[in-house]
Amino acid sequence: MTESFEIKAFGNEAAEADLEQLTIKRRKATPHDVEIDILFCGVCHSDLHTARSEWGPTMYPCVPGHEIVGKIKSVGDHVSKFKVGDIVGVGCMVDSCRECEYCKDHLEQYCEPGMTGTYNSPDSYFPGSPTFGGYSETVVVDENYVLRIPENLDLAATAPLLCAGITTYSPLHHWQVGPGKKVGVVGIGGLGHMAIKIAKAMGAHVVAFTTSESKFEEAKRLGADEVVLSKDKEQMAAFKGKLHFILDAVSAEHDINTYLGLLRVDGSLALVGAPEHPLPVAAFSLIGGRKSFAGSAIGGIKETQEMLDFCGEKNITADIEMIDIQNINEAYERLLKGDVKYRFVIDMTSLKNS
Amino acid sequence: MTESFEIKAFGNEAAEADLEQLTIKRRKATPHDVEIDILFCGVCHSDLHTARSEWGPTMYPCVPGHEIVGKIKSVGDHVSKFKVGDIVGVGCMVDSCRECEYCKDHLEQYCEPGMTGTYNSPDSYFPGSPTFGGYSETVVVDENYVLRIPENLDLAATAPLLCAGITTYSPLHHWQVGPGKKVGVVGIGGLGHMAIKIAKAMGAHVVAFTTSESKFEEAKRLGADEVVLSKDKEQMAAFKGKLHFILDAVSAEHDINTYLGLLRVDGSLALVGAPEHPLPVAAFSLIGGRKSFAGSAIGGIKETQEMLDFCGEKNITADIEMIDIQNINEAYERLLKGDVKYRFVIDMTSLKNS
Repeated sequence: MTESFEIKAFGNEAAEADLEQLTIKRRKATPHDVEIDILFCGVCHSDLHTARSEWGPTMYPCVPGHEIVGKIKSVGDHVSKFKVGDIVGVGCMVDSCRECEYCKDHLEQYCEPGMTGTYNSPDSYFPGSPTFGGYSETVVVDENYVLRIPENLDLAATAPLLCAGITTYSPLHHWQVGPGKKVGVVGIGGLGHMAIKIAKAMGAHVVAFTTSESKFEEAKRLGADEVVLSKDKEQMAAFKGKLHFILDAVSAEHDINTYLGLLRVDGSLALVGAPEHPLPVAAFSLIGGRKSFAGSAIGGIKETQEMLDFCGEKNITADIEMIDIQNINEAYERLLKGDVKYRFVIDMTSLKNS
Repeated sequence: MTESFEIKAFGNEAAEADLEQLTIKRRKATPHDVEIDILFCGVCHSDLHTARSEWGPTMYPCVPGHEIVGKIKSVGDHVSKFKVGDIVGVGCMVDSCRECEYCKDHLEQYCEPGMTGTYNSPDSYFPGSPTFGGYSETVVVDENYVLRIPENLDLAATAPLLCAGITTYSPLHHWQVGPGKKVGVVGIGGLGHMAIKIAKAMGAHVVAFTTSESKFEEAKRLGADEVVLSKDKEQMAAFKGKLHFILDAVSAEHDINTYLGLLRVDGSLALVGAPEHPLPVAAFSLIGGRKSFAGSAIGGIKETQEMLDFCGEKNITADIEMIDIQNINEAYERLLKGDVKYRFVIDMTSLKNS
């Protein structure tokens, strides 16, 4: 039987239930594990979807949180990459099969049998129990799934890089965004605001698309070279056939064909938001310019480390609003209304002191 | 005023009208033109859609036909690539702007101001008149838009390469189909049967998908390594995550998400058919494996010549049924029912002798 210890966490027991304080158990660090004292945890839209069982059945109790920054408290005997006191991060996954071609190719996020999510995945150490995320005092993770945090970055504002950062960096990198490229970013929220910062730092000309004129100044402050009001047909028409790549971070229903029309020949639009219903795509939107409608999920461990190093070098973090864990249910309600600039981050001392 | 001469052709004067014999005029060959005596012309689904004004308003009279094979009858003073007597082809375009970046990059099919279609495009030599296609005795075309036909191929069966051939070769080539790749071909018709032959000749492992068990033997004869009955869930499930690329040649409504599920990570599905209504695409069909839903249109002139040379080398032509031009209306009806194996080709002596 796996040796374990008990810690405080925040989670819920059913889809309709608010999150509240719970006691959960963690495994004692095995030889390849590090035990991390959690300092900050970002609040991702996925946390809310999962807590409320909106993405297929959730295993309860559910303890969300996959934008984790903390300090190493103890290390297993065979840990070679980290030592006690290191500042580290944990993102959306804590394990994968390590044997399939995708894992071997540093694409653990697309692991064939499936990666082990930081929360709501079956926990191989505790059969029948789900993994528990970062809304908790500590987390125990195999060192191969732990990231090193650049020393110059603000730790709280770095937490969202572990999901929102890599989710946008990976497609921008994969589709070769850089100098000489015009890149569209659709939706200026948790993901979109990171996409603007990262695309700009990669050297691209960034065009932000928003449904609200009130976000123009914000988008420019974040680094957009141009901002387009997406409901204004003339403004949209001016970009017809002009963009090399579009990163689409909108989770609500929206007209993909209009955006495909803004791509150049051989351009791709990559979806990182996840609209609930299928999006209607017209054949002629694609055929007329050998265009691609694509999607992308987070990034592999190696790429996540590259992203963190890139953000360290370029001094990029998320724009955040700090909350106490006791305010998480209220934060979820605000998240649903888009009322956050641009990511909530939980100060985990609020849990330790409770 | 452009000097011209009159010839016999077959076309219609209105969307609802049958095709019948007409007299049209052709420009006299300018210094860069070749005049081609048309021997064979393939019958493409686009001919029918255009004649019936189903793809936006058609300009009448409409003389379809863009799978043209013929013999050069005369050449302009500055023609350097061809001489009288050469066997040549003309495909879907007869001109483009030649100045935009796509034209310069040998992607004339995506010409920014738009290519000049072989039929139903404004004819710059005869303002107010559309271009007229290959259902006619002769055609006059700038030598830069004329293709050389390999000597070893059957001429009638080569005609469909000019549209069906390049429409399938171009995406197969662009998405790097070849040895070690598993490629799906969806729909075994005019386009699909060419895709199977070409993908096989490129060295790929070809998996054909059909709605009809009766096409199994046919698909294997054409070169498919495996055939899947697309309505059989178990047969489909066996290919989940297995295909590098899918060429989708179906014009009818069909479930794209099921086929996206068969792609490997980083796989693409390219649509070359053009379903009338937008296809619903689920975000998770793409995000879960960084997949792309793409489209592709014919190919550039340079690539079309490469395709013809490839087909010459591999001895690939279309499977055809020869008809007289007088039977074109009946052929259209059969085309609508999918009752042809796999392409009608018009023997143009039937027009000359009328």
